[in-house]
Amino acid sequence: MNGRMTTRRGSAVAYEEAYGLTLSSRVRLARNLRGLPFPDQATAQIRAQVLQCVQTAAREALPIQESLADSPRLFRQRLFEDHLISHHLLEGRPESAVCRNADRPLSIMINEEDHVRIQAIRAGLALREAWEDANALDDLLEQQLDYAFSPTLGYLTSCPTNVGTGMRASVLMHLPGLVIMSEIEPIINGLSKIGLAVRGRWGEGTAALGHMFQISNQLTLGLSEMRIVEDLEAIVKEVAGHEQNARMRLKQERGLFAEDLAARAEGLLSSARLMTAQEALERLSELRLGIALGLVKGLDMQTVDRLLLDVQPAHLQTAAGRSMSGEERDVERARRLRQELRRPAKRTAKRNP
Amino acid sequence: MNGRMTTRRGSAVAYEEAYGLTLSSRVRLARNLRGLPFPDQATAQIRAQVLQCVQTAAREALPIQESLADSPRLFRQRLFEDHLISHHLLEGRPESAVCRNADRPLSIMINEEDHVRIQAIRAGLALREAWEDANALDDLLEQQLDYAFSPTLGYLTSCPTNVGTGMRASVLMHLPGLVIMSEIEPIINGLSKIGLAVRGRWGEGTAALGHMFQISNQLTLGLSEMRIVEDLEAIVKEVAGHEQNARMRLKQERGLFAEDLAARAEGLLSSARLMTAQEALERLSELRLGIALGLVKGLDMQTVDRLLLDVQPAHLQTAAGRSMSGEERDVERARRLRQELRRPAKRTAKRNP
Repeated sequence: MNGRMTTRRGSAVAYEEAYGLTLSSRVRLARNLRGLPFPDQATAQIRAQVLQCVQTAAREALPIQESLADSPRLFRQRLFEDHLISHHLLEGRPESAVCRNADRPLSIMINEEDHVRIQAIRAGLALREAWEDANALDDLLEQQLDYAFSPTLGYLTSCPTNVGTGMRASVLMHLPGLVIMSEIEPIINGLSKIGLAVRGRWGEGTAALGHMFQISNQLTLGLSEMRIVEDLEAIVKEVAGHEQNARMRLKQERGLFAEDLAARAEGLLSSARLMTAQEALERLSELRLGIALGLVKGLDMQTVDRLLLDVQPAHLQTAAGRSMSGEERDVERARRLRQELRRPAKRTAKRNP
Repeated sequence: MNGRMTTRRGSAVAYEEAYGLTLSSRVRLARNLRGLPFPDQATAQIRAQVLQCVQTAAREALPIQESLADSPRLFRQRLFEDHLISHHLLEGRPESAVCRNADRPLSIMINEEDHVRIQAIRAGLALREAWEDANALDDLLEQQLDYAFSPTLGYLTSCPTNVGTGMRASVLMHLPGLVIMSEIEPIINGLSKIGLAVRGRWGEGTAALGHMFQISNQLTLGLSEMRIVEDLEAIVKEVAGHEQNARMRLKQERGLFAEDLAARAEGLLSSARLMTAQEALERLSELRLGIALGLVKGLDMQTVDRLLLDVQPAHLQTAAGRSMSGEERDVERARRLRQELRRPAKRTAKRNP
């Protein structure tokens, strides 16, 4: 990160907001109950005790409480796609549960790696708000639960990398400009050097499909929660400035290429009969860029953002009300995309003149 | 070629006609004037003499007579794309000309490799008719020109491979089924073994872009013209049978793939902002296959066949009335394709519901 962008931070922030460079902000807090072994070391009996205890404490704030141990795979897959459960719980651990409220901005996982994982998600760049949501729920739970806390180390967690605040703050950013202009590598390297992790949309080991990057803090010890949030927010604004810059140059220097890219994406999305989740993500990303650059008219970013979620395998199957094979999903995904993206005719359109 | 197809020849012929497997049939006759050196060995004076002599003889039948020596490059390129001149004349040889009638099924080149090259083109599978056209013009010219003819060898030509009938009969076939089902290689090998040449659309050395294959006789000596035509026609029908078979299996065994291929082709053709000639050829070929398989509705093959010609570089520039850079052509080609292929809206279409 060079310092030059700082002077343009104001414009970058406006740009970030206007073009949805940050799709979502997330804060999660890892907590454990004092005197009980962490879930992986605990007996089934102790995990059951933790489960009951936490569910009771959370009942009022998070009335939708679902067991993950005996849930159908599709149900867990859907929660995973919504970022409500982790890879760990996707496989369905015994005595584990997810508790959430109806709107889903706030949730907890019970007996994942830690006894309790609080999570708050907000749309757009809203790390402070997400932090406040998570913190308020944390305070509420702490009134009823006795957390494992060390005055010197802070919150104790199963994995040492979470000790301290137990907090992970992350943002999901859409950075097609930097990818297309081949400028993403130095940005990622720079972020790593200052202690941030950059991953694909679904966490560690997932590629940055559809130009989506999840940026999160690595350091949980020795910094206050607010400091972590403020630092990450400042970085997001800096990255947004770089992305804005890359997009402006893309449009100026390779305008026809960009226009063609977005038009082809829309053409394929609104006509294909088979489409994998990966291709859908890639084409929707190109379409999203086209909308942001003003190259695609009459289509709003909200529709694209909704489709980015809806074309995921479990979302598709849940909406269709049945389990589907891979090919059936590709057919249904293509159908859904055609239905939502097919354009009304232009009045000037003609055929076989 | 196995003999099995023979029993189905009747149905293959009907299929060939219905689905335009053969785009065009061509017959050309190489002729030279007695006692004069072939163009490459001749002086400019002798070539000029040949030119004048042949132009005069052809004037009534082929009133449009155009010199190639001092013509603009774009003009020659356009004639080349229409198969009216060869690679040889594309570069603009001195004292060379093309003579044709208004409808262009019949033409001659003067001072190409031979003094006279007569050519007749017919749409579809019509080799006999093309041969009759060429033969009638040949008879007409022979009334006024003294051809170099040997009672033992037949017509004498610049290249020994043309001696005898001086005839080359060829068809342009669209064989996407055989290509997609990976069955084209043995067919090509089989054709080569029985003395036929298989090339891309624009002759030797051009790849079989857009699944288009030009199949022609190699043998000009020791066979009558009618025998050459009949043999090639029989082969075309056999190849048509194999293509029909491959398409049927493609539709039965990989129907979704075929539908997706055609739909994507249409989607890209009707939305891209930049398109190379090669990509246009490939996508139009896929669209043509989709129409033949009944997977693309409301679009006729004639439109696609016209576009296959119209998107060629010189055609595009001639239609636009100006010379264009490569990128300008890609923009204009994409614009033209969008204009002709954009669909009227479906009544069920909806957007941002």
